[in-house]
Amino acid sequence: MMVSPAIALGVNLKVLADSMDESAAQVIPGAILGDYRDLATVREFAKDCDVITFDHEHVPTGLIRTLEAEGVRIQPSADALIHAQDKSYLRKALEPSLSPRWAIAASAEEVHDFGAPLIVKAIRGGYDGRGVWNCVTVEEAIELVVQLGSVLLEEVVAFECEVAVLVARSQHGQAAVWAVTETVQADGMCNETITPAPNLTAELCGRAQQIALEIAGLVNLVGVMAVEMFVIGDRLLVNELAMRPHNSGHWTIDGSITSQFEQHLRAILDLPLGATDLLAPFAVMANVVGTEKTNLYRPYLHVFARDPGLKVHQYGKTVRPGRKLGHVTVIGSNASDLRQRAAHAADYISGVIDE
Amino acid sequence: MMVSPAIALGVNLKVLADSMDESAAQVIPGAILGDYRDLATVREFAKDCDVITFDHEHVPTGLIRTLEAEGVRIQPSADALIHAQDKSYLRKALEPSLSPRWAIAASAEEVHDFGAPLIVKAIRGGYDGRGVWNCVTVEEAIELVVQLGSVLLEEVVAFECEVAVLVARSQHGQAAVWAVTETVQADGMCNETITPAPNLTAELCGRAQQIALEIAGLVNLVGVMAVEMFVIGDRLLVNELAMRPHNSGHWTIDGSITSQFEQHLRAILDLPLGATDLLAPFAVMANVVGTEKTNLYRPYLHVFARDPGLKVHQYGKTVRPGRKLGHVTVIGSNASDLRQRAAHAADYISGVIDE
Repeated sequence: MMVSPAIALGVNLKVLADSMDESAAQVIPGAILGDYRDLATVREFAKDCDVITFDHEHVPTGLIRTLEAEGVRIQPSADALIHAQDKSYLRKALEPSLSPRWAIAASAEEVHDFGAPLIVKAIRGGYDGRGVWNCVTVEEAIELVVQLGSVLLEEVVAFECEVAVLVARSQHGQAAVWAVTETVQADGMCNETITPAPNLTAELCGRAQQIALEIAGLVNLVGVMAVEMFVIGDRLLVNELAMRPHNSGHWTIDGSITSQFEQHLRAILDLPLGATDLLAPFAVMANVVGTEKTNLYRPYLHVFARDPGLKVHQYGKTVRPGRKLGHVTVIGSNASDLRQRAAHAADYISGVIDE
Repeated sequence: MMVSPAIALGVNLKVLADSMDESAAQVIPGAILGDYRDLATVREFAKDCDVITFDHEHVPTGLIRTLEAEGVRIQPSADALIHAQDKSYLRKALEPSLSPRWAIAASAEEVHDFGAPLIVKAIRGGYDGRGVWNCVTVEEAIELVVQLGSVLLEEVVAFECEVAVLVARSQHGQAAVWAVTETVQADGMCNETITPAPNLTAELCGRAQQIALEIAGLVNLVGVMAVEMFVIGDRLLVNELAMRPHNSGHWTIDGSITSQFEQHLRAILDLPLGATDLLAPFAVMANVVGTEKTNLYRPYLHVFARDPGLKVHQYGKTVRPGRKLGHVTVIGSNASDLRQRAAHAADYISGVIDE
């Protein structure tokens, strides 16, 4: 999804991919195949790049540090990225009032001390609900510690809703936030977003944006980052960071003057950032999540005829049940109407419904 | 510019280009190099395409007809395209009240009969002011007839402004128009567009859209077409057709729910067409026209800092004075403010101004 703004800005993209089936490799000429975990591969790849970035957070921090020491410009930097890669870094960096009660535990005793019910999180590698366990008893949590070694424990928070704030920051330190997005989760995976978050007061939205800007400065972000938060009454707790253009910001492609993908490019190239205004009072996005249905093109005949305002984005991925294959966005004035339109289109394309 | 919607829709593009320097060849993986005027080349290229289209109008009609007869799906068809390729076809097809007084002339006598002042147009191959001559005397026009053979003569029309109506039509016959665009020309080339046309009454805009829809049906258009018109009081005269996404519709990328490029894809794939609503009260586009300045990237530091709402589109072309290298778009409520912003950015990027 970074291809479109890169073409518009005349910025040449070069991609290192695991295979030609990867989304980016399909649409960027001359994709290089190789392992992003191999130092020599990434070093060779970096030779004719002005700046390197990533579309996931799994690039080893050590590899990034080595290349940074060799003078390769990588954004976000290893020091920033570690806060999204390692959940303990984020918790240690945040002011305590922004976190739920938490602890690092590597023993049964530490879990006992923390108490149940609790959330256990893998310190590294979680994604879309993987690496997060809701434990009713201490025993369940201890079993995870035995399996995983050191883990992050967090109290169970009875939140009213989840929101995400998308924030961009350039090397110069210029920063920009978009309106606060409410994220609706299913099975631990973001399913739908509504922007601006319809159930938050203006005061709370302002505070959420302020928190995101502060974290961006704190971690020395360069690029785009999503800060996911829980809303409990008038309190906001930070859940986690995604240090890249993120699912919670996909609405910006069709719903904002500057998309998160263009903004990420501008930030890592140290260009002035673009306006983050919405193009309508509300933007709603719904994910297209795979079912058994493999033809995602034929549904266009129905969904486009039903809704001429619908914007569809496919990711070029092989269909697998439960996999995010694309998303749809609609913009307009009535949030509940938009939610129905987006959900219908996403479910019809994916095959959840057939009329 | 068709790449972005094609990626979003999951439609694979394949391009036949003259050289790897062409804009489309730079951004579409696996470009095939070859001559679009060579039947065998295009036939071979067409083998694994569901539908063929073009980003200029110079593909020989005979070649298209041959492939159509062989069952290749080409949109727009040769029968439609001829109205944009050959100016005499358009004049013959139009109801007389929609044309200025005109004649085909191949002799001095015919030019004398028509009288001066007059406009002489090459019947084929004109583009961006080339192939059009403003003749004050009959003698000048006769000289052109001697050089060119058969030409189109048109009366000089004292128009107040020029407008373009962008229209799309699918194979099913579904059609859609965008708001009427005022086009501001310099040296016979479109320089700036303002949408909706600020100086036209709603009645005249409706009539212009109606004319474009009627021509789309008349020529059996499949795809996107721009109908350029002169406004004289409350009269509208058709100047010419561009049967492809057109400069006068570039504002739709950032200013409309559905861009002309997405709509062209939807029309030629016979998908339902998208909504053509504006995303703001006005959208203004200005072309970036080459000067001696060759670095079009460095100006971003200034223009983006000055105007965070600016959208820039580069075409990846080598800089040549007078060549269209890109465009900028701004959307908002105040048309004259938008015009100043767009003109400043376009002129600063191209090097016409330096502050």
